[in-house]
Amino acid sequence: MTNTWLQKCIEDIAKFGAGERGMDRLAFTESDRQARQYVIDLMLEMGMTIREDAFGNVIGRLEGTDPHAAPVVTGSHIDTVPDGGKYDGVVGVAGALYAVKNLQTRGPLTHPVEIVVFMAEESSRFGFATMGSKAMVGQVNQTLWSKAKDKDGVTLAEAMRTFGLDFANIKKAVRKPGDIKAFVEMHIEQGPVLEATGKKIGVVTAIAAPTRLKITVKGFAAHSGTTPMEDRQDALVSAAMIVLAIQEIALEQSRHGTVGTVGNLKVHPGVMNVVPGLVEMWVDIRGVNHESIIECLQDVKDAISTIAEGQETPVAIDILTSDKPVQLHEEVRTVITEAAKSCGASYQDIHSGAGHDAMNIALLAPTGMIFIPCRQGISHNPEEYADPEDIQIGADVLVETLYQLAK
Amino acid sequence: MTNTWLQKCIEDIAKFGAGERGMDRLAFTESDRQARQYVIDLMLEMGMTIREDAFGNVIGRLEGTDPHAAPVVTGSHIDTVPDGGKYDGVVGVAGALYAVKNLQTRGPLTHPVEIVVFMAEESSRFGFATMGSKAMVGQVNQTLWSKAKDKDGVTLAEAMRTFGLDFANIKKAVRKPGDIKAFVEMHIEQGPVLEATGKKIGVVTAIAAPTRLKITVKGFAAHSGTTPMEDRQDALVSAAMIVLAIQEIALEQSRHGTVGTVGNLKVHPGVMNVVPGLVEMWVDIRGVNHESIIECLQDVKDAISTIAEGQETPVAIDILTSDKPVQLHEEVRTVITEAAKSCGASYQDIHSGAGHDAMNIALLAPTGMIFIPCRQGISHNPEEYADPEDIQIGADVLVETLYQLAK
Repeated sequence: MTNTWLQKCIEDIAKFGAGERGMDRLAFTESDRQARQYVIDLMLEMGMTIREDAFGNVIGRLEGTDPHAAPVVTGSHIDTVPDGGKYDGVVGVAGALYAVKNLQTRGPLTHPVEIVVFMAEESSRFGFATMGSKAMVGQVNQTLWSKAKDKDGVTLAEAMRTFGLDFANIKKAVRKPGDIKAFVEMHIEQGPVLEATGKKIGVVTAIAAPTRLKITVKGFAAHSGTTPMEDRQDALVSAAMIVLAIQEIALEQSRHGTVGTVGNLKVHPGVMNVVPGLVEMWVDIRGVNHESIIECLQDVKDAISTIAEGQETPVAIDILTSDKPVQLHEEVRTVITEAAKSCGASYQDIHSGAGHDAMNIALLAPTGMIFIPCRQGISHNPEEYADPEDIQIGADVLVETLYQLAK
Repeated sequence: MTNTWLQKCIEDIAKFGAGERGMDRLAFTESDRQARQYVIDLMLEMGMTIREDAFGNVIGRLEGTDPHAAPVVTGSHIDTVPDGGKYDGVVGVAGALYAVKNLQTRGPLTHPVEIVVFMAEESSRFGFATMGSKAMVGQVNQTLWSKAKDKDGVTLAEAMRTFGLDFANIKKAVRKPGDIKAFVEMHIEQGPVLEATGKKIGVVTAIAAPTRLKITVKGFAAHSGTTPMEDRQDALVSAAMIVLAIQEIALEQSRHGTVGTVGNLKVHPGVMNVVPGLVEMWVDIRGVNHESIIECLQDVKDAISTIAEGQETPVAIDILTSDKPVQLHEEVRTVITEAAKSCGASYQDIHSGAGHDAMNIALLAPTGMIFIPCRQGISHNPEEYADPEDIQIGADVLVETLYQLAK
């Protein structure tokens, strides 16, 4: 591994929450706290002023020459999924730190530059994604969030309290339109496109929106030894049919770049000698083509009602989130493209299948994203990997982009 | 509720360990002790002599005219699952007490009659089922049992000590072949068959043996938003195919009375934004036809290897237990059938999908079982219910059966 400043930063952050199989640094956990402190210490070293907003987003600020100018903002997240990788999010935070370090050598900038470490970007712990940036743009459903619990039954409010934050104050995290001149996030692609084309920089045009469902299948719990096969209402059998139906529908819609996944499934009572009486499933549907997502969702609903009727197992569908794809800002995309050119980096336009904090900040300020390649497009996996040289190229393009926006 | 002697006995026993939702009378608990004392007092009233064996099985004995004749034994258990019902096991003990009361009015019998209250029939507390009858026939794995703990970490040995029993003496509970002339257990069906056919008595032909599998499906965890459908190795999709394959195979084998159930399924990492990388499944296959179970198992293995190959998701199969079904004794079945006839009770042959103490005692002595209907086949549930008149009919048939065997 090449031993650059960026690499050291990434490897240092990877020390917090390193699990047996991969990174386990869920939001609002002790390892998250430690990694954030590590980043805060680096920002302080660089002479940035630090503040933490009402949701725990960390904001480091480098003043510009014009005290009234709106800041140019960059950053990403450092929380991970369970058994996650070292690069998702972290590359954008390390890149931002590297950028500010370098901008300081370029002499004074007119605009302040801010680095944001967004809180709880991954939905793994509480079932909601990009929570920190949602809080920052005021896109919070407080009723739903107040019910959010992790696997151990810890509520979001309780988790926030361990960080000294009060759920009731979430609204105070909101930033007003005009507060930010522009936002740029650097991130690994988490897909196979750039590796396949050999381009080093992806200029993101749009971000796919996730539609998320919770599906509850109601069967009848009965003795697995004494209940004849014909007399059963086995919730898991119906759930299995639903899993396969969603897979088939998503395959059909994949020609529009839409994907569908059943990421989790829980069986109740979940013991070997009882026919499953209840199954809960969580589904994630995404795409950049809104019509395709709508069609996919309708097909899933139709398939489920057919299965529910045929199996005599009532099924309830809760739509947890249903967002529209987000188009990124023309001018910022141009600045990124020019920056890539002036750095001599190969580049292409690309869309993001994954959600990012940038899609929320786009509601507040002109926003762009810089993608870099990652091996085999693997992410949310211990094998996630980005080539140190590719990370360096991405960071250099980020430096130039921020310079042009803030100068 | 009709107020017969049997009903009073059942309701009295239900006073011990009555929980909020159902009966909570786990083995070796204070409520278990109190219920056992209630039964012992009734047996003493009837002039029976009482002894407790080295595992805590209570044995009440009514002497016959021939001091050398082997006893005819009946009984069941009074421990329950958590949130259990009033009838599982208790019906067989109350029926046995009722039977002895009535046999005494029929004049002296040649053979002694014994009532056994088996200890720890339910696996709920220590993870092993029918422990008392296993101890009685010497089918104890002392190494495994010595490690058995309840959910509070209390070991079996510690629980036995609270009943004044020493784990090291378990072997002393063993009875020798020839010790018992015949054993008959009365029990609720815990299934829907008798209710459906309208027959009042089930003459049990065989007791199903469980074959239990743990199936592990290995996929590849990947980002649910960015991984194209075609590039996925989704462990849950393969698992869903396996669930449906097992259902289909079990339906096919159900003509031999074989059933198959996937009782639990766990997804890893089990979050909405990651394609499932690993799935664990627990399967319970039961039947009374050994060939059918073997065939079922083979078909499941074949289906799994086809799915594993087609989906490129390797699957591992661990066989946790694989016991042979127990055939009950021809002659004892005939005696029960004749007894049903002479009582004018409708009857049919039936097999037991659930395990019972009788399946262990069958290794030691000619054994039979009498099933009575229970509402909707519901058991291990507070809604478990048996009609007082059906219980009465079952007890009358038990009386006649014991009389013919002991006269």
